[in-house]
Amino acid sequence: MKGNLNHQSNKNSIKGVEILSIGTELLLGNILNTNSKWISEQLSSIGVSHYRQTTIGDNLERLTKVIQEISLRSNLLITTGGLGPTPDDLTTEAIANAFNNHLFEREYLWVEIQNKLSKLVINNENSSLRKQCLFPENAQIVNNPRGIAPGMIWNPTKEFTIITFPGVPSELKEMWKESIHEFIKTKFSDGSIFFSKTLKFSGIGESSIAEEIEDLLNLRNPTVAPYANLGEVKLRITAKSTSKDDAIKQIQPIKEELERKFTKYIFGEDDDTLSSVIINLLKDRNESIVFAESCTGGLLSSSITSEAGASEIFKGGIVAYSNEIKQDLLGVPKSFLDTHGAVSEEVAEKMAIGVKNKLNADWAIAISGIAGPQGGTEMKPVGLVYISIINPNNKHTNIKKLYNSRRNRCEIQKLSVNECLNSLRLILLSNKG
Amino acid sequence: MKGNLNHQSNKNSIKGVEILSIGTELLLGNILNTNSKWISEQLSSIGVSHYRQTTIGDNLERLTKVIQEISLRSNLLITTGGLGPTPDDLTTEAIANAFNNHLFEREYLWVEIQNKLSKLVINNENSSLRKQCLFPENAQIVNNPRGIAPGMIWNPTKEFTIITFPGVPSELKEMWKESIHEFIKTKFSDGSIFFSKTLKFSGIGESSIAEEIEDLLNLRNPTVAPYANLGEVKLRITAKSTSKDDAIKQIQPIKEELERKFTKYIFGEDDDTLSSVIINLLKDRNESIVFAESCTGGLLSSSITSEAGASEIFKGGIVAYSNEIKQDLLGVPKSFLDTHGAVSEEVAEKMAIGVKNKLNADWAIAISGIAGPQGGTEMKPVGLVYISIINPNNKHTNIKKLYNSRRNRCEIQKLSVNECLNSLRLILLSNKG
Repeated sequence: MKGNLNHQSNKNSIKGVEILSIGTELLLGNILNTNSKWISEQLSSIGVSHYRQTTIGDNLERLTKVIQEISLRSNLLITTGGLGPTPDDLTTEAIANAFNNHLFEREYLWVEIQNKLSKLVINNENSSLRKQCLFPENAQIVNNPRGIAPGMIWNPTKEFTIITFPGVPSELKEMWKESIHEFIKTKFSDGSIFFSKTLKFSGIGESSIAEEIEDLLNLRNPTVAPYANLGEVKLRITAKSTSKDDAIKQIQPIKEELERKFTKYIFGEDDDTLSSVIINLLKDRNESIVFAESCTGGLLSSSITSEAGASEIFKGGIVAYSNEIKQDLLGVPKSFLDTHGAVSEEVAEKMAIGVKNKLNADWAIAISGIAGPQGGTEMKPVGLVYISIINPNNKHTNIKKLYNSRRNRCEIQKLSVNECLNSLRLILLSNKG
Repeated sequence: MKGNLNHQSNKNSIKGVEILSIGTELLLGNILNTNSKWISEQLSSIGVSHYRQTTIGDNLERLTKVIQEISLRSNLLITTGGLGPTPDDLTTEAIANAFNNHLFEREYLWVEIQNKLSKLVINNENSSLRKQCLFPENAQIVNNPRGIAPGMIWNPTKEFTIITFPGVPSELKEMWKESIHEFIKTKFSDGSIFFSKTLKFSGIGESSIAEEIEDLLNLRNPTVAPYANLGEVKLRITAKSTSKDDAIKQIQPIKEELERKFTKYIFGEDDDTLSSVIINLLKDRNESIVFAESCTGGLLSSSITSEAGASEIFKGGIVAYSNEIKQDLLGVPKSFLDTHGAVSEEVAEKMAIGVKNKLNADWAIAISGIAGPQGGTEMKPVGLVYISIINPNNKHTNIKKLYNSRRNRCEIQKLSVNECLNSLRLILLSNKG
């Protein structure tokens, strides 16, 4: 229920900015409206306040009416969706309708579209794709570098601007960055900006954080807002100010207070991930790492290698899903598997030793556990996970986790990977390595 | 861009149903509006059409105005958010304002709230929490079994009903199931339901599908709607009917037509994934598989092991990120790496042979490529990927892909994994195995 920051301002617009999302799939609940959130964030970041978002289906009459309504109370309307070639793509038509205007074909756009598609899929001159070349006469075309359908910037009246985007998020984002960001910033921002700094936490829950910082959560400017993901909590500190430098100054004391209070739980800021933090820590030490994974089945390796720069510290891994591979490739003694079972501290430790020797690295992490839904027993239930981390001096840190039984397979895998990375982070920071 | 199905019906309401999401955090782009999607799905499932969703900030004046607007064009308004104890929680107050009504405290609710909180956090009789006991005189209270703030069902006028929910998704869902589902179904549904069947495609683009089924995309009931994700297209067939059985009967001929037209591209239905399909195909043949991954860094293994049942066919994998591991563990000759480079058909093939022998399985897949952003050259640009698949008779299928240079690292990894899985699927189906 955080508030107030985005109410007021906007250069020449007391009337404000609105977002209109178009698509019956949104009303049917088939897809999440991620576009509205993304555009909202962009508007916030350049200090443009918007007051309302509307979602409407692919219906010409209703669409036309809602555009007319919005034009009476706002200066800028940003639409997403309905620019494609199918009969249900009605956005440009509805906009023209709303202002008793007509659409005209831009011949050069048809050439562009044909080139984009290498002419392969276009059957004839009557292709439905041709619809995407129709625009009001004086509309400015917005190039779509990632897709087919262009957007437009159009002023149907002196006081009202409409910008259209396709519904595909990647196309929208690229078009925003290439053509729209500067346009809106110049025309609709009063010069104030919102600036945010996000601190990322691992190993602590949202409510534990919230209880300790009730005073900060009640601040008005900057604001502090918590968000929780699986195995990770973020606190976003947002300041409204006239300049980025000033916003940073406002944010700094709050950031420092949080860092004092939650030292070991904060693993990074903004775009940092546990993986990127680990890569940087190991790079600084000029050390390498390898993994042996059972229940996480490659997710730990995949998390590290999703980050650019992984190759500087990550040599490789062995996904030892079967006991055969644990034995043959990682050298886990059969007697260990028989006596302790594959999911045990003893086997996890042997897996770590095995992969470190086999792949010849400074550090190794091994994981063995039961991700479910099958395979659990009373003694070893679904959610039981053993992790073993070996440092360059061959000292082990062994960890046992038992995740809540309500967790599904993918959640247990993800939480296990987070636990590996965060535990390694704490070991590296404590200089126990 | 699908339409029309959810336009019309609703028992006594030609005017329709709307959802209003309240909270400045939504306008700031701090959080995704998952509540609207969830409610939309619920309404669809009981055949209640809604025509519009609105999002508005925590501002009394704007909130009051938008509620008045909605009351003039709809029969039912469902609100989420703004029921908490802070000064920014204004929903109930705005609703009363909109109809010139007053709020009265329900004494028994205050007792309930105190009990829920074990009196621990309540300092005095003037607690801000007390605000959550205020409702219009004739509103019906909706119990909140998961949280503190109750909701309400209120008829400010004869023709207009408002239902309020808190913004916390888990509370909303519980309240919906316990108190609201039946109420809306009885009062606002005409007894019809929506039922959907989704077909999933790989190896073909959305526009190529759309061009071939223009007639189907124009159907009114059932409707056929395409959605594209990275490397995957879905067609959702939705029927509105009086029963699930009848809806399935309506969907069947369309499904069969699509299956005829796109035989080899359709890999599954509804919750199927390429991984789950591969697991089932190999399980039926009683064959096992192993992977050697370079540029995908464990993502292929992780995709397979994210599905329950993977252990029946997947023995393990080697993430050979460094050339050292490609040589030592997979037996790729140094001369191959020197002559052809790690990213080459020759090395991918040797990796596949190496992992198949080392881990002793019926099938093997190897991938080597350049996921970027660094590491590309003119001869071997970012996006170049070699895949080698070996069948139980040691016959190779080698694939070369060059993904668009606009693709980022994670997209190239994901598309490569899709290509591996879909190619294997086609080989398995062609009985070339």
